[in-house]
Amino acid sequence: MSFQNPVFIPGPTNMPEAIRKACDMPTIDHRSPLFGQILHPARAGVQKILKSDTAEVFIFPSTGTGGWETALTNTLSPGDTVLAARNGMFSHRWIDMCQRHGLDMQIVETPWGQGIPADRYAEILKADTAHKIKVVLATHNETATGVKSDIAAVRKALDAAGHPAMLFVDGVSSIGSMDFRFDEWGVDVAVTGSQKGFMLPAGLAIVGFSQKALAASKTAKLPRTFFDIADMTKGYAANAYPYTPAVGLMNGLLLATEMLLKEGLENVFTRHNRIASGVRAAVDAWGLELCAETPDLYSDTVSAVKTPDGFNATDIVTLAAEKYGVAFGVGLGEVAGKVFRIGHLGSMTDVMALSGIATAEMCMVDLGLDIQLGSGVAAAQEYYRGSTGLKMRDAA
Amino acid sequence: MSFQNPVFIPGPTNMPEAIRKACDMPTIDHRSPLFGQILHPARAGVQKILKSDTAEVFIFPSTGTGGWETALTNTLSPGDTVLAARNGMFSHRWIDMCQRHGLDMQIVETPWGQGIPADRYAEILKADTAHKIKVVLATHNETATGVKSDIAAVRKALDAAGHPAMLFVDGVSSIGSMDFRFDEWGVDVAVTGSQKGFMLPAGLAIVGFSQKALAASKTAKLPRTFFDIADMTKGYAANAYPYTPAVGLMNGLLLATEMLLKEGLENVFTRHNRIASGVRAAVDAWGLELCAETPDLYSDTVSAVKTPDGFNATDIVTLAAEKYGVAFGVGLGEVAGKVFRIGHLGSMTDVMALSGIATAEMCMVDLGLDIQLGSGVAAAQEYYRGSTGLKMRDAA
Amino acid sequence: MSFQNPVFIPGPTNMPEAIRKACDMPTIDHRSPLFGQILHPARAGVQKILKSDTAEVFIFPSTGTGGWETALTNTLSPGDTVLAARNGMFSHRWIDMCQRHGLDMQIVETPWGQGIPADRYAEILKADTAHKIKVVLATHNETATGVKSDIAAVRKALDAAGHPAMLFVDGVSSIGSMDFRFDEWGVDVAVTGSQKGFMLPAGLAIVGFSQKALAASKTAKLPRTFFDIADMTKGYAANAYPYTPAVGLMNGLLLATEMLLKEGLENVFTRHNRIASGVRAAVDAWGLELCAETPDLYSDTVSAVKTPDGFNATDIVTLAAEKYGVAFGVGLGEVAGKVFRIGHLGSMTDVMALSGIATAEMCMVDLGLDIQLGSGVAAAQEYYRGSTGLKMRDAA
Amino acid sequence: MSFQNPVFIPGPTNMPEAIRKACDMPTIDHRSPLFGQILHPARAGVQKILKSDTAEVFIFPSTGTGGWETALTNTLSPGDTVLAARNGMFSHRWIDMCQRHGLDMQIVETPWGQGIPADRYAEILKADTAHKIKVVLATHNETATGVKSDIAAVRKALDAAGHPAMLFVDGVSSIGSMDFRFDEWGVDVAVTGSQKGFMLPAGLAIVGFSQKALAASKTAKLPRTFFDIADMTKGYAANAYPYTPAVGLMNGLLLATEMLLKEGLENVFTRHNRIASGVRAAVDAWGLELCAETPDLYSDTVSAVKTPDGFNATDIVTLAAEKYGVAFGVGLGEVAGKVFRIGHLGSMTDVMALSGIATAEMCMVDLGLDIQLGSGVAAAQEYYRGSTGLKMRDAA
Repeated sequence: MSFQNPVFIPGPTNMPEAIRKACDMPTIDHRSPLFGQILHPARAGVQKILKSDTAEVFIFPSTGTGGWETALTNTLSPGDTVLAARNGMFSHRWIDMCQRHGLDMQIVETPWGQGIPADRYAEILKADTAHKIKVVLATHNETATGVKSDIAAVRKALDAAGHPAMLFVDGVSSIGSMDFRFDEWGVDVAVTGSQKGFMLPAGLAIVGFSQKALAASKTAKLPRTFFDIADMTKGYAANAYPYTPAVGLMNGLLLATEMLLKEGLENVFTRHNRIASGVRAAVDAWGLELCAETPDLYSDTVSAVKTPDGFNATDIVTLAAEKYGVAFGVGLGEVAGKVFRIGHLGSMTDVMALSGIATAEMCMVDLGLDIQLGSGVAAAQEYYRGSTGLKMRDAA
Repeated sequence: MSFQNPVFIPGPTNMPEAIRKACDMPTIDHRSPLFGQILHPARAGVQKILKSDTAEVFIFPSTGTGGWETALTNTLSPGDTVLAARNGMFSHRWIDMCQRHGLDMQIVETPWGQGIPADRYAEILKADTAHKIKVVLATHNETATGVKSDIAAVRKALDAAGHPAMLFVDGVSSIGSMDFRFDEWGVDVAVTGSQKGFMLPAGLAIVGFSQKALAASKTAKLPRTFFDIADMTKGYAANAYPYTPAVGLMNGLLLATEMLLKEGLENVFTRHNRIASGVRAAVDAWGLELCAETPDLYSDTVSAVKTPDGFNATDIVTLAAEKYGVAFGVGLGEVAGKVFRIGHLGSMTDVMALSGIATAEMCMVDLGLDIQLGSGVAAAQEYYRGSTGLKMRDAA
Repeated sequence: MSFQNPVFIPGPTNMPEAIRKACDMPTIDHRSPLFGQILHPARAGVQKILKSDTAEVFIFPSTGTGGWETALTNTLSPGDTVLAARNGMFSHRWIDMCQRHGLDMQIVETPWGQGIPADRYAEILKADTAHKIKVVLATHNETATGVKSDIAAVRKALDAAGHPAMLFVDGVSSIGSMDFRFDEWGVDVAVTGSQKGFMLPAGLAIVGFSQKALAASKTAKLPRTFFDIADMTKGYAANAYPYTPAVGLMNGLLLATEMLLKEGLENVFTRHNRIASGVRAAVDAWGLELCAETPDLYSDTVSAVKTPDGFNATDIVTLAAEKYGVAFGVGLGEVAGKVFRIGHLGSMTDVMALSGIATAEMCMVDLGLDIQLGSGVAAAQEYYRGSTGLKMRDAA
Repeated sequence: MSFQNPVFIPGPTNMPEAIRKACDMPTIDHRSPLFGQILHPARAGVQKILKSDTAEVFIFPSTGTGGWETALTNTLSPGDTVLAARNGMFSHRWIDMCQRHGLDMQIVETPWGQGIPADRYAEILKADTAHKIKVVLATHNETATGVKSDIAAVRKALDAAGHPAMLFVDGVSSIGSMDFRFDEWGVDVAVTGSQKGFMLPAGLAIVGFSQKALAASKTAKLPRTFFDIADMTKGYAANAYPYTPAVGLMNGLLLATEMLLKEGLENVFTRHNRIASGVRAAVDAWGLELCAETPDLYSDTVSAVKTPDGFNATDIVTLAAEKYGVAFGVGLGEVAGKVFRIGHLGSMTDVMALSGIATAEMCMVDLGLDIQLGSGVAAAQEYYRGSTGLKMRDAA
């Protein structure tokens, strides 16, 4: 395997040296006070990154999908109604999970490339005078389409309807990279994983619960054991887990939160926006368009680039991997073959981004697209030259 | 944190250098063929370690507890009947999980320190002429009591009754360290984790399914998504996962299986028995007894040592951690305060074991027990000197 | 410190994962047979990379400079005559070392940017009928100017004169990256270090001696202890060193030789030529010139790029470091401020090279040079697209 | 190779996790300001560990032997007179180096097992009214015999004679582990390496020069280049080296000094004395004696244990390596076969020491010595139980 080039997939991201080393930890007794010195500050760090003063943070040896399951099974009972928009592969999968757990789904089908239709949510919520809807799902950043949705608008829809439903947000590819406001947006459950904004290997589901969601867990009847937050709460009180925690990953998470908070969350977001803007300048120079329909939807963590009709976008991904040893993301679901994705989150610099742009360019030319070599690179260079470089710095 | 001394907890174990390095892997594209080169041989290696030609191996970013949930939710429906013996904390927890998932438990209460009462199982199975019992649970090695049970005898009980129930075995603290025979014993689901015999960090649930268990999954109605083996099967066919896999841990698992198979499974088992025998010689020299009531029950991966009445065994564990920086295991559940546990599985040598024995000795003397310093060490030394040393060797 | 971007200095190079891990080794007894299992195959591997069947390879915990000192002090006596060309900073330094050790230097001053003037060597050697010249020095690849010299031509000059002087070659920035033929060229001492073609951290001087050089060591009177090859020879015979060896680096060297030989030396050289050719295409597209005066002199490991008169080339290096976090090499000695250097040896891909080229471009534009953004990148892309990509692959 | 057991050689020592990680560093530009941020604080840290306010610290990519050569070649001229005692293999080797460099040696032959005879030094210095002696050598801790010498007494001998000779001290196996007072003892050059008290891999010569020694370097005529402190001084002023530094090791050295100073030097010395005292209690319990003749000579970093006449002590070392995978040190030179050595410096705990003691015991019994298993362990346990445990703690 070649590990020389950076990856440009929308997670797992490139990992900083210091984080890899924090994860690569010798065995300690996970029932000792030592573990508490990792667990508690890591949870507190996540809380700050969620911009919450009150969220209860749970961390499972799992992934974002496990985080979704944690959200649902701890708060809902079979037959409960859930409102969700389907505008990409990841919102689709969360809906699918709900259905498998016997929930009654009210789905707003939405074109892939658009964000959550908050106005439709508002209408539906207003109409639900019986308050059958228990939970509203919102995918903050659709990793499949590179579309960012307006969570504040969803909150407004709930408030306007005076609706008591809980708001569950999938922040897997936004939290730690793009602005996320748990308290201000009135989020009830936020879900993410270790391998995106936290720049860790996959292996942790990271979930924040509001007090309202915690209260709901007392009566929720969906079966759960591995993902039971009550067991977890009891464990945490004793510096422990109900089972064996992934200690090294937790240690890495602690460092990741320290690094992000030291850099400053607004700086982190600005940095991601800067890298993303360079990539978007390149896409524009190529004469191509993003899957995200309008600039307000542009994701700062992943860009899904539409290729011309009749061209299989997946060929770019395959060629990049085989000929140049570079990983991009393929299109998924409805946009399979229509887009390829450039991940630009986590531990990424302008210089690394340029090598990804250059590689995409070579592949597109190799495959016969009418792209000028160096054109996207030049546009991104121009942008990066002029913008303030807020560079993330590793601790050694 | 001090990482200088080995740990003597019954998992996570001390980790070989080479395995730590295999886990500490840069980011790769988990949807690329590269990942398939890790995934498939790792699964094949686990199958061999299970001594199976046919078991379908599933690996989740989770823990052994998640493995239990995988076993249950993929094969059973609410209200199904399950037979289980409760003879320690881990069998207790698996039973608890069954109850939470709405299964109807038939529990054989068994003294902690004894193995699974195969004769009681035989009677119950014979009496269940309606074949209401769908699954028989068996904890191969009770980590809480250091008791190994006779799985072949459980199989015989099933066969003698001509009973079609499936046999699910918790091999978390036995597989990869003690003899385990998936095919010969007619196991239907075997569950383990990464942090025991495989000497990896915690973070993987490793599960083997028989063809019969796979068939049962077609009709099982317990809700599942994260732990759904059908999604996993579909993913594997495309060198992938239904979500993001823990690539580094998988890479470590691949190496672990290679190391164990290269050493030879029988050699691995002999090595564990040798280390354990030295520890047991020390316990005997101290004039103490194991929780396991008879020699046929002695576990080769963990020894639970009973301390005199009126003495709090947990004090040994606390003192060892605080004064000597050494981790032992406390007693759990019914044997809390009555035993302390010495883990001796995984990456452990005779020389390391001697330092654990010496530490336990110091602590017991510090706490006023009538133990002679050096006595347990001398007994273990005598044993280790005379026995054939089959030492595990790292690849660099 | 930020470790995210590759470095483009002419050594130490970017390091492959597998090599870093091989170097990061726990303590072993360096007087045990284990060490012999590293030492001997590492020396044998170096011999093969030197393309020699007979060279005696010595490895000191030191650097290339220590290798030069090893060459001189083991073979010469005070007052001995040495012939050398000065055509760059590194040939200059080796000459300076000779002078400090009391050797009588016959120096051929050569414009920086030109190679060793083999014809001048030929004249001098022919004129030296008394054979006062004991050693001829030759810097194979002048790291300061990016100039490769023709060692075969130097050998021819010696042979044509029937001169018995020994031929000492500084291959620090060529061996393991560019074709080097110890036996065919009749080299008597070859010197390199760990941090260039071997892709290791600095810390090893690696030296090959011909039988003739070994014979000379019997009578050489320059004082030496640390660099004494006689002590080293005695040590090697006992799997050991006369002092403590740098075991981890030696282990890394062993792996590096295995990786290079597995890839195939000719493939390694082709790979370096390919990366270098892309860089040179970029320089050409910028309208700039290399310090190396003619194509036959172009180095495949480092390019020294001349900037316009009145421009301080060092500003590019400073800006790249400060604004973009990228390391290039400054001009040294006579070419300080006149050139900046792009190192492209060792663990470097086309994709990485493109990010270096893009960065240099941004810096030059930032500093007011009349360069078109993307122009060098496009030229390199065009080259890389068309050439066969022989990619180095890490072992995991 | 098995890396599971600790080593008990007198260096390289077992390495703390954090130090290994600090050494395992990606490539940076060693001519950039980043390197200065490692270099200068590392040198300042070493100065503090030398207990000096004024010593100029030089760090070479080399070993302690290179440090000796640095001391001699920078301060002396051919034919200069040097006074030295030979009381072990390492003092012997330093004398040998002097002789090879053409120095005139005045040697005080001293029984191996005794310290430097300061009274003999006093007589000789008093008699040298012409002040022909330029340098007095002193090996602070003879690693071969486990003998600590009284450097303050050597200083007194110089002062009593009013002799201007410089005092050079080999502190390779004492500095960072045992009390060393550069300023108070009037040391002119102190020499050590990275792989002992600093707990790093081998690869650095670490040398402190007094102002007097620096002055002597202006006129010293021994040839030198690699080890020239004038070049090094010039380099340091520019955050650089005259050649490529071993950056990772320097980074590790920086951390090592931080760790030692944070623990507190007196605590470090007490910790070493405590571990050593337990080992000595074991030796006493075995009925054996140390090579060091009297308690004031006992080294706190290494114990050379004498075995009975007619017994080959080296057999213990061989058996320990082959049967138990544990490394001890063999006897060297005059005491070859008569002693085996237990290294107990650096990253070592009481628990680790007990495993070494237990292993030595097993080997001695295996080889027929009349030793009682567990006896040495019991004596050490008794000591460790009662003494205050000052445990070194890694930073994660």
